[in-house]
Amino acid sequence: MNSKLRAAVFGASGYTGAELVRLIATHPSLEVAALTANAKAGQSMAAVFPQTASLDLPDLIRIDEVDISAIDVAFCALPHATTQEVVSALPRDLKIVDLSADFRLRDPAAYETWYGRPHSALELQDEAVYGLTEFYREEIAAARLIAGTGCNAATVMYSVLPLIHASAIDLDEISVALMAGVSGAGRSAKEGLLHTEVSEGVHPYAISGHRHVAEFEQEFSKAAGRPVTCSFMPHLMPMNRGILATVQVRGEADEIHRTLAERYRDEPFLHVLPLGEAPATRHVRGSNLCSLGVVPDRRPGRAFVFSALDNLVKGASGQAVQNANLVLGLPETEGLTLAPVFP
Amino acid sequence: MNSKLRAAVFGASGYTGAELVRLIATHPSLEVAALTANAKAGQSMAAVFPQTASLDLPDLIRIDEVDISAIDVAFCALPHATTQEVVSALPRDLKIVDLSADFRLRDPAAYETWYGRPHSALELQDEAVYGLTEFYREEIAAARLIAGTGCNAATVMYSVLPLIHASAIDLDEISVALMAGVSGAGRSAKEGLLHTEVSEGVHPYAISGHRHVAEFEQEFSKAAGRPVTCSFMPHLMPMNRGILATVQVRGEADEIHRTLAERYRDEPFLHVLPLGEAPATRHVRGSNLCSLGVVPDRRPGRAFVFSALDNLVKGASGQAVQNANLVLGLPETEGLTLAPVFP
Amino acid sequence: MNSKLRAAVFGASGYTGAELVRLIATHPSLEVAALTANAKAGQSMAAVFPQTASLDLPDLIRIDEVDISAIDVAFCALPHATTQEVVSALPRDLKIVDLSADFRLRDPAAYETWYGRPHSALELQDEAVYGLTEFYREEIAAARLIAGTGCNAATVMYSVLPLIHASAIDLDEISVALMAGVSGAGRSAKEGLLHTEVSEGVHPYAISGHRHVAEFEQEFSKAAGRPVTCSFMPHLMPMNRGILATVQVRGEADEIHRTLAERYRDEPFLHVLPLGEAPATRHVRGSNLCSLGVVPDRRPGRAFVFSALDNLVKGASGQAVQNANLVLGLPETEGLTLAPVFP
Amino acid sequence: MNSKLRAAVFGASGYTGAELVRLIATHPSLEVAALTANAKAGQSMAAVFPQTASLDLPDLIRIDEVDISAIDVAFCALPHATTQEVVSALPRDLKIVDLSADFRLRDPAAYETWYGRPHSALELQDEAVYGLTEFYREEIAAARLIAGTGCNAATVMYSVLPLIHASAIDLDEISVALMAGVSGAGRSAKEGLLHTEVSEGVHPYAISGHRHVAEFEQEFSKAAGRPVTCSFMPHLMPMNRGILATVQVRGEADEIHRTLAERYRDEPFLHVLPLGEAPATRHVRGSNLCSLGVVPDRRPGRAFVFSALDNLVKGASGQAVQNANLVLGLPETEGLTLAPVFP
Repeated sequence: MNSKLRAAVFGASGYTGAELVRLIATHPSLEVAALTANAKAGQSMAAVFPQTASLDLPDLIRIDEVDISAIDVAFCALPHATTQEVVSALPRDLKIVDLSADFRLRDPAAYETWYGRPHSALELQDEAVYGLTEFYREEIAAARLIAGTGCNAATVMYSVLPLIHASAIDLDEISVALMAGVSGAGRSAKEGLLHTEVSEGVHPYAISGHRHVAEFEQEFSKAAGRPVTCSFMPHLMPMNRGILATVQVRGEADEIHRTLAERYRDEPFLHVLPLGEAPATRHVRGSNLCSLGVVPDRRPGRAFVFSALDNLVKGASGQAVQNANLVLGLPETEGLTLAPVFP
Repeated sequence: MNSKLRAAVFGASGYTGAELVRLIATHPSLEVAALTANAKAGQSMAAVFPQTASLDLPDLIRIDEVDISAIDVAFCALPHATTQEVVSALPRDLKIVDLSADFRLRDPAAYETWYGRPHSALELQDEAVYGLTEFYREEIAAARLIAGTGCNAATVMYSVLPLIHASAIDLDEISVALMAGVSGAGRSAKEGLLHTEVSEGVHPYAISGHRHVAEFEQEFSKAAGRPVTCSFMPHLMPMNRGILATVQVRGEADEIHRTLAERYRDEPFLHVLPLGEAPATRHVRGSNLCSLGVVPDRRPGRAFVFSALDNLVKGASGQAVQNANLVLGLPETEGLTLAPVFP
Repeated sequence: MNSKLRAAVFGASGYTGAELVRLIATHPSLEVAALTANAKAGQSMAAVFPQTASLDLPDLIRIDEVDISAIDVAFCALPHATTQEVVSALPRDLKIVDLSADFRLRDPAAYETWYGRPHSALELQDEAVYGLTEFYREEIAAARLIAGTGCNAATVMYSVLPLIHASAIDLDEISVALMAGVSGAGRSAKEGLLHTEVSEGVHPYAISGHRHVAEFEQEFSKAAGRPVTCSFMPHLMPMNRGILATVQVRGEADEIHRTLAERYRDEPFLHVLPLGEAPATRHVRGSNLCSLGVVPDRRPGRAFVFSALDNLVKGASGQAVQNANLVLGLPETEGLTLAPVFP
Repeated sequence: MNSKLRAAVFGASGYTGAELVRLIATHPSLEVAALTANAKAGQSMAAVFPQTASLDLPDLIRIDEVDISAIDVAFCALPHATTQEVVSALPRDLKIVDLSADFRLRDPAAYETWYGRPHSALELQDEAVYGLTEFYREEIAAARLIAGTGCNAATVMYSVLPLIHASAIDLDEISVALMAGVSGAGRSAKEGLLHTEVSEGVHPYAISGHRHVAEFEQEFSKAAGRPVTCSFMPHLMPMNRGILATVQVRGEADEIHRTLAERYRDEPFLHVLPLGEAPATRHVRGSNLCSLGVVPDRRPGRAFVFSALDNLVKGASGQAVQNANLVLGLPETEGLTLAPVFP
């Protein structure tokens, strides 16, 4: 019996591609039917990612070699800009869960501002549904093209978006200090990502502006019904996986906590800690969970909201599988109940 | 429908206990029915291990509070010596997979020599079957009490035992340099295990004799039909999970490689790399896999054999679940097909 | 010729004690004349800290065994509370540079609030000069008892204090996200400081209130001439050394940058980066430097101020040596020009 | 007064170049007079290595821009092959301490075998003195061109060379398992050196043959008066600095220990631990020390010899400064008494 749905992973030589393969490996209803990586076409997946050696996987091929007609869903883990080209060339009826930045922004001008070039597939950008599952569940289930969120953006939105919806915080006083593991920067060989340059230290990065800001401000503004501008300072952590957002807001901690707890009560992957507790990235590592906490600030009328997730899972590939489950009519949590790996 | 078999974890406040919980969480046929930790009885598991917060788990209780009659299998993750007492007091028909050192050694004198005290439950020591699954599969399936192997011992045995069986190496020339992640030392608060003392450095440990030597020399001698003595030098790594054994032997690399490849061809969790390749611990992290490699030495007639596994999975809790599957008549690989987590 | 001044280190079995020994080892005018550690009295320093094995050091003794008359300066690296007792019992004319929290707070009530017990040596608390060298230089040079600052407090004060003096920021809008290496927690064997619990992850700590807040708010309020209350959220980093303070303030980035640059222009250990750049902890590691940066916020009228230092050097033992230099009439930078160790 | 000797660092944009700058910064008799990095000429050293920002350093220039006549000693930290060209073009009377592999091997055929190309400056290769200071002290003091050793080679030689001289071990039974920090691979942006690929794991590398073997076998064979072939297996560690060599030999541990202890009794940088103790890399980090230990093997007549050093200091730049001191007639230990940085 082989009744599994067939998934292709475009761009399987990056970390999010490999993480998709990891997740699909134990997914009851999905199988990996095709893996592409243009620069490494012809190699086995195990040659590129030895951790997959024990899995039964197809070799890497070029995208144009994929038999699209035999694919039920395509995960697209390609660089931005390239993605626009590739997706434009795919059949109009192929279900696509995209992990790039190309279809996240509603406003073409915003895309051009943040990504330094005009968008070349505006109709696709228009068609795409934003992949923040817990806030776009119905739209995703009905969509053909899902635009996965930025990993940092997802972390921030989970802690703030319900508070805007509930008018629980001051829209002009949202300030985010974010701590991000290095795998979010991908597998490209850059000096700044070397073990020698990253370990045993911390520093702010993207200090003149991080592209994920465009995403979460888009969503915050939409939720608020007026423009919302946030402070945002990301820091590169000496760790591989995980993002922690420490968000300072103006509002009452107990109301904020109650709002989050109620909003996420029935969400399988969002876990709100008791008031006064804070999450740790290592306690969600490897899982599709996002852990949230609320702590009163020393200054009255203010609070800290924390969210922690694994950037490669809930921030990218786990989110993508969750959305693919919706698109394919599968149970939303299928294949995503892996418990965190600690230590 | 709740037809799952019910597992108890005795000693759930340590890392191997928590890892059992992680593995059982996605095991199709097992559920966690009881968790014990005498010193932390009354607490929730999430209070002790926050990474389990999203799981539906019973609170920690004392062992004497467990309704043994409702338990199908007990995993015993207690310290040695304590284990003898606890297991002696359990009903004679309870199936037990033990993770301590207490029932590994056949020879009571050897136990006393290595553990510094006489064994207090010799009949149980006699009854126990050694838990190196791939070499004791039938005995395990028929046993009531399984003695899980030491994590370092398992790593060494996987690379060497088939070579002794096949007479492929010189029995007097086995030398092991082993590199072990710090989680193997458990969760006890010791100065030498602090982040400040372990990270960014490496050093040999247990240099006057490591207890796991007793185990693998027992098995090697049994396989050889005469005493086998090995050199063994473990090193503490600045990493949490993983063991790499670098074993130098006298023998022909190609014959050694062929022997291992044939011996493990049908083994679901043992993966032999092509001749001339070496494994990395990070490529099996979080999984029940052991990856092996063989490389010719510069000196003719000698070879390096490598094995890498995750000490908390294949070296401890994964092995325990694998053995429990056998004991319970379940498919051996059930719940153990989690792919490695990298990076 | 042995004309060096003789230093005693009380409490040499902790990290700040060992760091004092490291710094004194290459100090042209100081030598280690006595090392104490009551619980480890009788041991060699090399037995407690093997990295000192090549140094010519006295063995550890009890404090009451020290010939105080032969000591020119005592560094006191003992736990708080204990320190009050020990210092009270020392001769009134012994010059003491204290690294504990016991003499930092001017207000006895504040001490009792933050440390949970009344202060037992109020006259010493009154006599002590706060050890933030660049702001209390003259007082330190004339003092007998110096109260070294908290490492987190120093990091925060370097970035903010000149801005308060210059009225360059809104006193009611100071918010600090701080990232601290684990050595700041000392060498005590606690579960939460194990390599397994700290590495590969990040989490907020001391979320209900960190004692160092009392210090910097004391100094800020004194500088402002009225009470100043800050938001403060520290995070435990998977690294040993280093603190980064990311401070959000309301004020103009260029004025803030100019204020810091002018204030620290002649300071040998405080280095202000060009406007728009941010420091990294790893670039000051092992040195007595503090590196500062200013970056405009996305929200107009606000800015991020960053400071980075090595908690064991500029945040503790390097600061102590700098203050000892002043107390002893030595050049302030003597023995402290070690360049950062990177990578 | 500026009577310091003037040093040039050719190839200052790599880690050994930066480490030279760190060491010279506190060297009483040396100053940095020129820094070169052809690809980064025109930049400040601080732009390339921010940790040097507080030092008063010349900008990076091209080698041809250096006023050689004003240089007292040149440290050459360039890639092999390039080094031959550069050194050939330098004045014949310039004192050069080279850190590359180009002048280490006496045998041109060996060079070609291990480095894959013929040597282009054979007369320089012939002139060069091997930089293992403690074994070539007089030759180095009289030489013009010093060939610094490989970092791994130095680590191995310190533990074995005296044993060969003393005929304390079996020449045919030397087997080395080596654990090396990632900074030894330099600052080049390679996928395999990323934080994501190196941290939290260990693997053997250069398994088909490491070039440093050629060096230490050259020295061992010279010392033995006949060819010596060793087993050698290096492992890449998840740490930045440090090398540990675990050497298994056939010989008596007490004789071996006595031999090393006597040989190194008067050596300022080589420290032999008591018999039965083993060193840790973290206890020599940042220093010019090499720490050695001897432990009896379980198998009679065999022993483990350990040596640990910081690859960037005693294994490269510290060794280079030590040799420069000899070449320039300075005290050998000048500028090299920095104590280890731990934690």
